[in-house]
Amino acid sequence: MLTISTRGKAMPASPIRKLVPFAEAAKKKGIKVYHLNIGQPDIETPKMVLDAVRHSDFKVLEYSHSAGNESYRKKLVQYYASVGITVNANQIIVTTGGSEAIAFGFMSCLDPGDEVIIPEPFYANYNGFAVAAGVTVVPVTSYIENGFALPPISDMEKKITPRTKAIVICNPNNPTGYLYSKEEMEQLKELILKHNLYLFSDEAYREFCYEGHQTSAMHLTGVDDHVIVMDTISKRYSACGGRIGAFVTKNQQVLDAAMKFAQARLSPPSFAQIAGEAAVDLPADYFDTTKAEYKSRRDLIVTRLNQMEGVFCPNPGGAFYAIAKLPIDDADSFCQWLLEEFSFEGQTVMLAPATGFYSTEGLGKQEVRLAYVLNSSDLAKAMDCLAAAIKVYPGRK
Amino acid sequence: MLTISTRGKAMPASPIRKLVPFAEAAKKKGIKVYHLNIGQPDIETPKMVLDAVRHSDFKVLEYSHSAGNESYRKKLVQYYASVGITVNANQIIVTTGGSEAIAFGFMSCLDPGDEVIIPEPFYANYNGFAVAAGVTVVPVTSYIENGFALPPISDMEKKITPRTKAIVICNPNNPTGYLYSKEEMEQLKELILKHNLYLFSDEAYREFCYEGHQTSAMHLTGVDDHVIVMDTISKRYSACGGRIGAFVTKNQQVLDAAMKFAQARLSPPSFAQIAGEAAVDLPADYFDTTKAEYKSRRDLIVTRLNQMEGVFCPNPGGAFYAIAKLPIDDADSFCQWLLEEFSFEGQTVMLAPATGFYSTEGLGKQEVRLAYVLNSSDLAKAMDCLAAAIKVYPGRK
Repeated sequence: MLTISTRGKAMPASPIRKLVPFAEAAKKKGIKVYHLNIGQPDIETPKMVLDAVRHSDFKVLEYSHSAGNESYRKKLVQYYASVGITVNANQIIVTTGGSEAIAFGFMSCLDPGDEVIIPEPFYANYNGFAVAAGVTVVPVTSYIENGFALPPISDMEKKITPRTKAIVICNPNNPTGYLYSKEEMEQLKELILKHNLYLFSDEAYREFCYEGHQTSAMHLTGVDDHVIVMDTISKRYSACGGRIGAFVTKNQQVLDAAMKFAQARLSPPSFAQIAGEAAVDLPADYFDTTKAEYKSRRDLIVTRLNQMEGVFCPNPGGAFYAIAKLPIDDADSFCQWLLEEFSFEGQTVMLAPATGFYSTEGLGKQEVRLAYVLNSSDLAKAMDCLAAAIKVYPGRK
Repeated sequence: MLTISTRGKAMPASPIRKLVPFAEAAKKKGIKVYHLNIGQPDIETPKMVLDAVRHSDFKVLEYSHSAGNESYRKKLVQYYASVGITVNANQIIVTTGGSEAIAFGFMSCLDPGDEVIIPEPFYANYNGFAVAAGVTVVPVTSYIENGFALPPISDMEKKITPRTKAIVICNPNNPTGYLYSKEEMEQLKELILKHNLYLFSDEAYREFCYEGHQTSAMHLTGVDDHVIVMDTISKRYSACGGRIGAFVTKNQQVLDAAMKFAQARLSPPSFAQIAGEAAVDLPADYFDTTKAEYKSRRDLIVTRLNQMEGVFCPNPGGAFYAIAKLPIDDADSFCQWLLEEFSFEGQTVMLAPATGFYSTEGLGKQEVRLAYVLNSSDLAKAMDCLAAAIKVYPGRK
């Protein structure tokens, strides 16, 4: 019989996508929609980075090495050194976005039925890669009350079973914006050593820390074989469409296994490797400017959100997301209502219901994720919309 | 314990890659190596296609739609119409190379333990995607004596079990160059209808047919729900590094499932979608020129090979590969010997042992695959090397 696979059925649809038709309908009615629902920054990709591609002069768009161009991997060694990570070019596999780095990690280290522990709320697409790999996601809840700090290690330890193979973190975090402290990272280190687990560390937002610095999983000592960093240029250089990431580990066995998955798909995209290579040579102050911009946006929305009656938004230390708790009955209904029934001066705002980021059923029903990827003027208008909306929302609690 | 996954261990290493160190060593000794071992054409990517990227003027390298830019998918509808395939833009998911189209097909339609029947020798990376998806490849042998024609349907039917879900073909074929006839395609149609199977059709080499035309799986009538075409721009426009392919089917359930895998990885690469879109507007005679070039190369190597004593090479109808049977003991040893111990006038040739393309142990030991991806002058020199090598190879039979 012609059937879809069990995993094809189990694959989660994008939790945000179901709202898209409502956003499109709102726009058709002439309503301006502020998109705070996705992590697509409006920051311009550095001209130097795009120019590297535009001024390239090769004649044949060839496959690169399956691990990525050697020249790019050597440049990445420089980049990692600049953030205090010592690796060599053979410890890096250039991937098709951070997404593929996650897939390589799951596929290389985990078997069907194995478990990975992930603090929730978490990046929803981890679910998709887990389903593709037949892996079970075991959530450990973090809470908005303490800004989504790392759950107590004892809570995490309780979830460990003989099938537990890895812990996945995103630091700074999508969707919470939480930046793990050095102490929390050390606690994680003790845990993975004690139970001999992998630590998969998604560090897509490494540069965007507003309160102190990031402690990379690769800064931890004595856990070289345990740590796999999943990286990407998407957010770092506002180059999401390039689809260039990196799989970085010092564990040779894992590298060898991941390399076989890399060979099966031949090579990562060639054009964007040129972009990524050029980006490493951006002036040292590039991130200062970008970071200052994101920080001022964060300050704006966190201030505005906490001024709204019944709203609580912890101050996120990094990335460009915040989760806010709203005085509402149901985040999914609210986000749909914002698009379907509400407008304020001809405008509305699109948010991501936080329910899609929790694995535990029923959590996040009063929470929304906001991506501060618009300029301050637009963000202010979006906050005006949200403030007005909360006042009149029929499901207000 | 820190272990590699079972599938990570089971993943096949590239059958060609193990020879790379020997090629590098030969080059270090000053020997010129003609690379007929991989399908990386030397044909220039059309300037118009590269210029579309180089002259692009966007400011932010954004994610595209997970299914690919709508403008590109609409162009692809035109392209497919030009090759007699009627589809709409919603029946196309733009993928990261043909590789991802294969992965989406396996993941969406097949469960771990399911079986796919593939005529062997076949494109070795099908094994990798099968391992990643937990799927069992069941080979049906095709033979050099009749040019690797489709095995008798009765042979294929014998392999069908309750776990059989699909048949995979590559047409024209990599690695054999065989072009399936309309009659063979009709036989496959009867088979998939009778046993309610999917037909995954890899049509990467569609344009390169030297004896008649390709019958696409999408030309078959009455099997819309069964057929999934895996496509790519890599070979068509000599744009392998772009990593742009397409997953094409009229089966809505399959599209819906594949779309969820597409959403998990966010989007295909943006730069090369611009290239792919421009390529559809290449002048109508573009393929005439390229095809004429490949045809003259094919004629050259097939003629030269068959002139060598004890060598047999059937005349491939398409793609840019040929498999030749040589008077040797072992193709792996021979290909290594060519690089490690042989040279002729300071030159040698790198070939792919055909063993890597057979799933049945022991087959292909006297066969090599040649990719005619070099210009005729280089190909002629490579044939000189091979002719000289066969005469002196210690394992000659």
